[in-house]
Amino acid sequence: MNGPFLACDWGTTNLRAWLVDADGRVAEGRDFPLGVSRLKPGEAAERFRQEVRPALGAERLPTLMCGMIGSTLGWQVAPYADCPASLDDLAAHLVTVEDGPAAVRIVPGVRGPGVTAAPDVMRGEETQLFGWVAGAEDRARGRRVVCHPGTHAKWAVIEDGRLVRFVTAMTGELFSILSRHGVLASDAKPDDEEAFLAGVEAAGDGSALAARLFSVRSRVVGGDADPQSSPSYLSGLLIGSEIAALPRLLDAPDDDPVALLGDETLIAWYARAFAARGVACTTHSGDEAALAGLTALHARTAP
Amino acid sequence: MNGPFLACDWGTTNLRAWLVDADGRVAEGRDFPLGVSRLKPGEAAERFRQEVRPALGAERLPTLMCGMIGSTLGWQVAPYADCPASLDDLAAHLVTVEDGPAAVRIVPGVRGPGVTAAPDVMRGEETQLFGWVAGAEDRARGRRVVCHPGTHAKWAVIEDGRLVRFVTAMTGELFSILSRHGVLASDAKPDDEEAFLAGVEAAGDGSALAARLFSVRSRVVGGDADPQSSPSYLSGLLIGSEIAALPRLLDAPDDDPVALLGDETLIAWYARAFAARGVACTTHSGDEAALAGLTALHARTAP
Repeated sequence: MNGPFLACDWGTTNLRAWLVDADGRVAEGRDFPLGVSRLKPGEAAERFRQEVRPALGAERLPTLMCGMIGSTLGWQVAPYADCPASLDDLAAHLVTVEDGPAAVRIVPGVRGPGVTAAPDVMRGEETQLFGWVAGAEDRARGRRVVCHPGTHAKWAVIEDGRLVRFVTAMTGELFSILSRHGVLASDAKPDDEEAFLAGVEAAGDGSALAARLFSVRSRVVGGDADPQSSPSYLSGLLIGSEIAALPRLLDAPDDDPVALLGDETLIAWYARAFAARGVACTTHSGDEAALAGLTALHARTAP
Repeated sequence: MNGPFLACDWGTTNLRAWLVDADGRVAEGRDFPLGVSRLKPGEAAERFRQEVRPALGAERLPTLMCGMIGSTLGWQVAPYADCPASLDDLAAHLVTVEDGPAAVRIVPGVRGPGVTAAPDVMRGEETQLFGWVAGAEDRARGRRVVCHPGTHAKWAVIEDGRLVRFVTAMTGELFSILSRHGVLASDAKPDDEEAFLAGVEAAGDGSALAARLFSVRSRVVGGDADPQSSPSYLSGLLIGSEIAALPRLLDAPDDDPVALLGDETLIAWYARAFAARGVACTTHSGDEAALAGLTALHARTAP
């Protein structure tokens, strides 16, 4: 460690901040409804100074931030580091937005070749990925496949501790949009495990999603399924499609064990889908990984 | 022919009606903004009697209707005929909702095994499919693959004049929802052919759509594509995914020539995508096919 610091995972909808003491322990953790999608242009620096620092008594602490705060919507653009990338590469490309003993620095996102001709990008997940690697010695050896579910789910391959390739899947966003708009819209809660698993099975080999999606409707209209189970089935279908198709895109064997990293409730649903498909997985907290990643970067780079 | 009649393709958003004379010629064609999604429950019969019949001077004509008018949202449910189905099967299952010399009858939809455990269904397209078959003698022989693009695109395999299997893909609905909601939303027109073709190529083998969709965004955020071209790219990606994946689901060879049936503008875009993928296709008017299908049914079944 290099003394106390303020660690921030500043995302699209939320800002999570941790006050980390000189021994690397969390003295306090706080959430702020200051996600970059809620900020006016140019407002991030001021809100941080006036709301976040005082709330944690962190007026004079060096600060390290990861996430969408480094995007065009955030404080200042932190240009992407290129894949393959190591923790040292991130450390070498921190962007200093305020200097001095209470410096504020932003972790760059990572850009890599995409599934298509377009590149793929992440911001925030890279810090969680390296934080996860730092969590156990054997994770920095050999090949590891990590799935980070969410609005824009990230699948990453880590080889000997380096992020070598990754793919984004808009699974969470598709669920959110399709359950609110169009013929599949429904107010029911996606909490029916049986329908969820039927959706996972309906995902098949992960091809032809637009066709499989129609079964959300046709199982009700042409069959006898309860409309209340539609969101659960839709969720299983989307998650099952992701699980079926993504390993192939990453050139990872279908049956490689997968480390699930992220929100506890969401990764529990993913774990059910993995179990149904007979793929081994482990589950890990995304928040803890973000903090671990920021702490590892602070240790290497504190002014 | 069995005398003059009124032919109606009564769909979700629109009602198209043709006054057909005793020689099978169209005396008049009219559109009405009376799609079933715009009707109050139970209102179809009254609106038809008070608005459609008088507008065409067709108060005393027998009437044949196809489309969503036979759904729970329509006049009365016309139970699905089962796949494989022939034109004779449809003729045998017309549902009479008003009797007498000015009888009103509704063509049943068709239900078949789906890609998933849920069945697949169509209402309206079956009439166009058989109308298309009736349009040339050789279409009733051997195997034909027909693609009917739209909100819910239908792909059908016709063998010796019988509809043997079909699959629905929600391509049009996905485009509509994704271009209006979420991070891919855009007001730009999908009229950029170069971006459309880049999208078709990005569809790859039709797998992992949720991952490929992210490229609509990442080609702008991480690359240098013009955001104005995003809807065109999205359209190409969705149509390309459909074209890549659907033939396999139908057990039809990838390179079988495909008959495109439907809206002129839409099938022109599909034709560009087929050409880019090196698959032969022909194009055919959906309206003409609907009229031909209703006329063929009238000839077999008029009271």
